[in-house]
Amino acid sequence: MKKIITITTDFGVDDYFTGVMKGVMLSVNPDAVLVDLNNCVKKFDVFAAAVSLRNSFNYFPEGAVHLVVVDPGVGGTRSPIIVNAGGYYFVGPDNGVFSFIYSIFSGYRVYEISNSEYMLPEISSTFHGRDIFAPAAAYLTKGIRPEHFGGMVKDPVTLSIPDPVIQEKIISGTVIYTDSFGNLITNVPAEMVGSNDIIKAGGMTLDQPRESYSEACAGEPVAVIGSSGYLELAVNMGSAAEYFEKHVSDTNLTVDVIKVNL
Amino acid sequence: MKKIITITTDFGVDDYFTGVMKGVMLSVNPDAVLVDLNNCVKKFDVFAAAVSLRNSFNYFPEGAVHLVVVDPGVGGTRSPIIVNAGGYYFVGPDNGVFSFIYSIFSGYRVYEISNSEYMLPEISSTFHGRDIFAPAAAYLTKGIRPEHFGGMVKDPVTLSIPDPVIQEKIISGTVIYTDSFGNLITNVPAEMVGSNDIIKAGGMTLDQPRESYSEACAGEPVAVIGSSGYLELAVNMGSAAEYFEKHVSDTNLTVDVIKVNL
Amino acid sequence: MKKIITITTDFGVDDYFTGVMKGVMLSVNPDAVLVDLNNCVKKFDVFAAAVSLRNSFNYFPEGAVHLVVVDPGVGGTRSPIIVNAGGYYFVGPDNGVFSFIYSIFSGYRVYEISNSEYMLPEISSTFHGRDIFAPAAAYLTKGIRPEHFGGMVKDPVTLSIPDPVIQEKIISGTVIYTDSFGNLITNVPAEMVGSNDIIKAGGMTLDQPRESYSEACAGEPVAVIGSSGYLELAVNMGSAAEYFEKHVSDTNLTVDVIKVNL
Repeated sequence: MKKIITITTDFGVDDYFTGVMKGVMLSVNPDAVLVDLNNCVKKFDVFAAAVSLRNSFNYFPEGAVHLVVVDPGVGGTRSPIIVNAGGYYFVGPDNGVFSFIYSIFSGYRVYEISNSEYMLPEISSTFHGRDIFAPAAAYLTKGIRPEHFGGMVKDPVTLSIPDPVIQEKIISGTVIYTDSFGNLITNVPAEMVGSNDIIKAGGMTLDQPRESYSEACAGEPVAVIGSSGYLELAVNMGSAAEYFEKHVSDTNLTVDVIKVNL
Repeated sequence: MKKIITITTDFGVDDYFTGVMKGVMLSVNPDAVLVDLNNCVKKFDVFAAAVSLRNSFNYFPEGAVHLVVVDPGVGGTRSPIIVNAGGYYFVGPDNGVFSFIYSIFSGYRVYEISNSEYMLPEISSTFHGRDIFAPAAAYLTKGIRPEHFGGMVKDPVTLSIPDPVIQEKIISGTVIYTDSFGNLITNVPAEMVGSNDIIKAGGMTLDQPRESYSEACAGEPVAVIGSSGYLELAVNMGSAAEYFEKHVSDTNLTVDVIKVNL
Repeated sequence: MKKIITITTDFGVDDYFTGVMKGVMLSVNPDAVLVDLNNCVKKFDVFAAAVSLRNSFNYFPEGAVHLVVVDPGVGGTRSPIIVNAGGYYFVGPDNGVFSFIYSIFSGYRVYEISNSEYMLPEISSTFHGRDIFAPAAAYLTKGIRPEHFGGMVKDPVTLSIPDPVIQEKIISGTVIYTDSFGNLITNVPAEMVGSNDIIKAGGMTLDQPRESYSEACAGEPVAVIGSSGYLELAVNMGSAAEYFEKHVSDTNLTVDVIKVNL
């Protein structure tokens, strides 16, 4: 069975960094199947990486290793870790990037990567993706058990994940991810949104959620249940990020779902 | 024999969307070889995707599956389709993105993708690339015949493809694709251009077509027969797109080939 | 044993060019493992490509083929070549892009690619990456010996590589690569930098080199030994390129290592 390693970084596509990590992984396991999952996480944005991972990891077959290198604290005191959860391995820095994984899979286990046997011979202080994380991911695909990399980590770093605020007739959410189409993904799960509810964003009323972008006129804002299972603001054939930046002054865009009982 | 799936989208490289489609495809067929063909088609630009596909599909071995997700009408009424033509399969929305394929291979066959057996269990209204197109592409590489996905489509949507206008001594073409070097690819095929013909672009005379970019001085415009077999405007060590934007006011740049008989 | 081909180009990610080269390579050798190493070398910047290659090639297993298409002279008089050095093959134009390889491996051998048997049937004058370099790389992975592609090249083109200037108590270097984080990589090797040395950049004193980015305050400049083994200017959680552009007028940023004997 072929083993997949997905790659999520904030390295962008303008350098050789991700390519070098692939060289390291293929040196350890020439049969690994390497998949770029998202190399353009906003630089240093651990939370964005966490959301990107949450929205994507489970579309890969069980046994896949998800390598995440968004690591502003590289060379500092944060630990490199392996998370075993939900039939997947996750490899990256202990900086909260796996927070959603911890909340989804209560039985998760976290191991420190400290065994230098599974690292490159020389460890730089600025590129642990190459020297520590990539080799660890590749050794996992060769069947090395996570407990061989180091001891268990009891309290991994967890980011505070904003939950929607639920009042009697209003659910107030916030935008937690902006995609490259300018779609604004909120933290309000689909289950909380009824088809007759009124959606307000930054004080603007968007009416009921629509089935698809194209139900709005081109250039008009629309609320839809996005593909990740959360309420999303979009503009048909345009960018909701630009639209709301222009029309709403508040940068912390509040999205209200006003319950309508029929 | 390994099966290739190429990927053409307007998703850009800033998100996890293409990565997720790869996860879906590898879940269906772990042996598929996935190749990013072009993920940076201009957003919503179906015609640009069609040209990109025309210029690239036949460099892959027969049997390859070309997945194209440039799909501004996602969730609306357009059908998801499979095209069987020229020894390849093409998978994408029925919005005209395969227009050049239809004109190249008269014996093409088009099938709707309606059999939910070959889709993800849950279909979102905003990401058919993940839920419908990616699984279809992957199942094709596993040998599922296109007729098992759904019924035949008699009249697939076709874009109007601008042809050059041929007069007695002048062939008038237009730019149909701008690449990232700023090269302007026209719709005038190489066969219509003689080595002594005079090329005029937006009223500027460029002399005879050259063999290569470097026959012009750095920064100077030049007409060449481009690698896709069409007349192309370029600037040596520079961008023809920028050059003509600065020097020619007409945004619909007309390119005239003035026939010179010797 | 699977054969790897890495790809370094200045094609960017906005077109189908790299994808087409992959199609050509997989047509020649369906078992080749293709790795994007860096497709966003600054356009026409042969030196940047040379540095990118120097910092990355040896993280791939021996036997890998490194394809480099940064080729502003395409269609002109420069030769296409294969370099055999250090257990790797390098394929690209003879324009100096392999200069560091020549200086690292004195026993390198260079062969012209002139045998049309290992090219596409039709050779364009603007896309040798597709028509000449990609097929050559793929045939190498099928075991075709480099001498079958053409005759030996005695004096391949070599770029002048700036060395640091060493005085009694000062080593003066210069920036040779800027990565997408804005880190400025100099030509001063780690061995020349003592942990007590004072680093000055563009006249600004940065104190001793640090172990990692995070030893500086956010937004503050810092000198570190970078992951490529050279002295590097960085800004913690920011861009040194932007920082020094703002604070130092000299565009040819000089970096002085002032030796401190204890």
